[in-house]
Amino acid sequence: MFTVAILTISDMGFRGERIDASGDVIRQMVSRLEAQVVEYGIVPDEGPIISAKLKEWADRGDVDVIITTGGTGLGPRDVTPEATLAVVDRVVPGLAEVMRAEGLKQTPYAMLSRGVAGIRGQCLIVNLPGSPKGVAEGLEAILPVLTHAADILKGRTTDHSSASKVE
Amino acid sequence: MFTVAILTISDMGFRGERIDASGDVIRQMVSRLEAQVVEYGIVPDEGPIISAKLKEWADRGDVDVIITTGGTGLGPRDVTPEATLAVVDRVVPGLAEVMRAEGLKQTPYAMLSRGVAGIRGQCLIVNLPGSPKGVAEGLEAILPVLTHAADILKGRTTDHSSASKVE
Amino acid sequence: MFTVAILTISDMGFRGERIDASGDVIRQMVSRLEAQVVEYGIVPDEGPIISAKLKEWADRGDVDVIITTGGTGLGPRDVTPEATLAVVDRVVPGLAEVMRAEGLKQTPYAMLSRGVAGIRGQCLIVNLPGSPKGVAEGLEAILPVLTHAADILKGRTTDHSSASKVE
Repeated sequence: MFTVAILTISDMGFRGERIDASGDVIRQMVSRLEAQVVEYGIVPDEGPIISAKLKEWADRGDVDVIITTGGTGLGPRDVTPEATLAVVDRVVPGLAEVMRAEGLKQTPYAMLSRGVAGIRGQCLIVNLPGSPKGVAEGLEAILPVLTHAADILKGRTTDHSSASKVE
Repeated sequence: MFTVAILTISDMGFRGERIDASGDVIRQMVSRLEAQVVEYGIVPDEGPIISAKLKEWADRGDVDVIITTGGTGLGPRDVTPEATLAVVDRVVPGLAEVMRAEGLKQTPYAMLSRGVAGIRGQCLIVNLPGSPKGVAEGLEAILPVLTHAADILKGRTTDHSSASKVE
Repeated sequence: MFTVAILTISDMGFRGERIDASGDVIRQMVSRLEAQVVEYGIVPDEGPIISAKLKEWADRGDVDVIITTGGTGLGPRDVTPEATLAVVDRVVPGLAEVMRAEGLKQTPYAMLSRGVAGIRGQCLIVNLPGSPKGVAEGLEAILPVLTHAADILKGRTTDHSSASKVE
């Protein structure tokens, strides 16, 4: 069992000019796991605001995984990866690599997705693209490892993890 | 329609001891797109010189995409990725990942190519390897998305881009 | 012919509570190449200690490639990638990408492996996972290019390398 926070990053969503379909996709897909959504929010595409929200949730202690959607493209307002990198201690490059590789099976534009993943304290932060389709494809690719990742981060598999390092 | 600048990075090319076949390959391949080559230059493998030229072109406002060739290997003079990272605001990891993945289908040495891609202002900068073969393979992999990338960076598809973030 | 140093990073291995099977796997696999293992050590999962050992070996001049095992996961003590990034001048992202991509053919958990590769001076440093299985799979993927990489870094193929940049 682990907890999830969903952060939608979208100027239009924040202004209420658009329904947050992508946040709903995350919520539905996460429900397939032994996971509980404990936070949800929408912020505009502003680096400092995104970083502040990620820090607030990650440092609170009861959020295991933060999943963001939006702001990962090439547009001038797309700064989610930079706002994420600004607050993580350690990056997890493989999660973003896998999401892009899976996305490329659907469309070459997936190579333009700039999402990152990283760890702040004991919290994993993962950037997904903005579109519901991009979210579904990206999350599908990493869903199989999220529970294990949360367990390691919370120290619930410390012994096994330490052992497996050398054995 | 977008504009391209080609920067060949090579000590021997700069000294006129070698024909710049790779620059020609870029020129030919780019001509398949609705693109116009507006600048071309050769610089030696010197970080500050490479960075200065990238800044000059990116900040001028009329260059949408800069494609470099050379300086991405393990040799002591190969510093193109570092010179590029020094001037970009945001990285686009997927472009480099795709070029290496495609290159690996031809040769395992592709995993040693250290090229990066990133954005400075509204200009996309992409590092290609130095050999004509490496350039052809790498550019082939990203050619399908260059026009779209330039459109987003210039704000020509801003509305669609913003919309697709949440929808 | 090139030289290799093996660094096992493991709290339990350092305390003598576990046999270093992964170090042995590296030793056996490297023996397939024209390579000589000139150093071997075990350090705990402490960033500054890892960085200091990497610097010591890389700066000595007689170590061409350092292969580390351990400390690349999500656990709170897993800091090998950060300790490596702290001492390299230039990163070689393709080596880590390839190892993860190969690992994914065996298990989705490979996407959580955070290993990096980079160059300090003329020495290549590569992080492998901690488990013998992870080490074997990762090393298998990059073994075909290690000799060439060492040759370029030591300047033994300088002429060819410079030539291939433009030609």
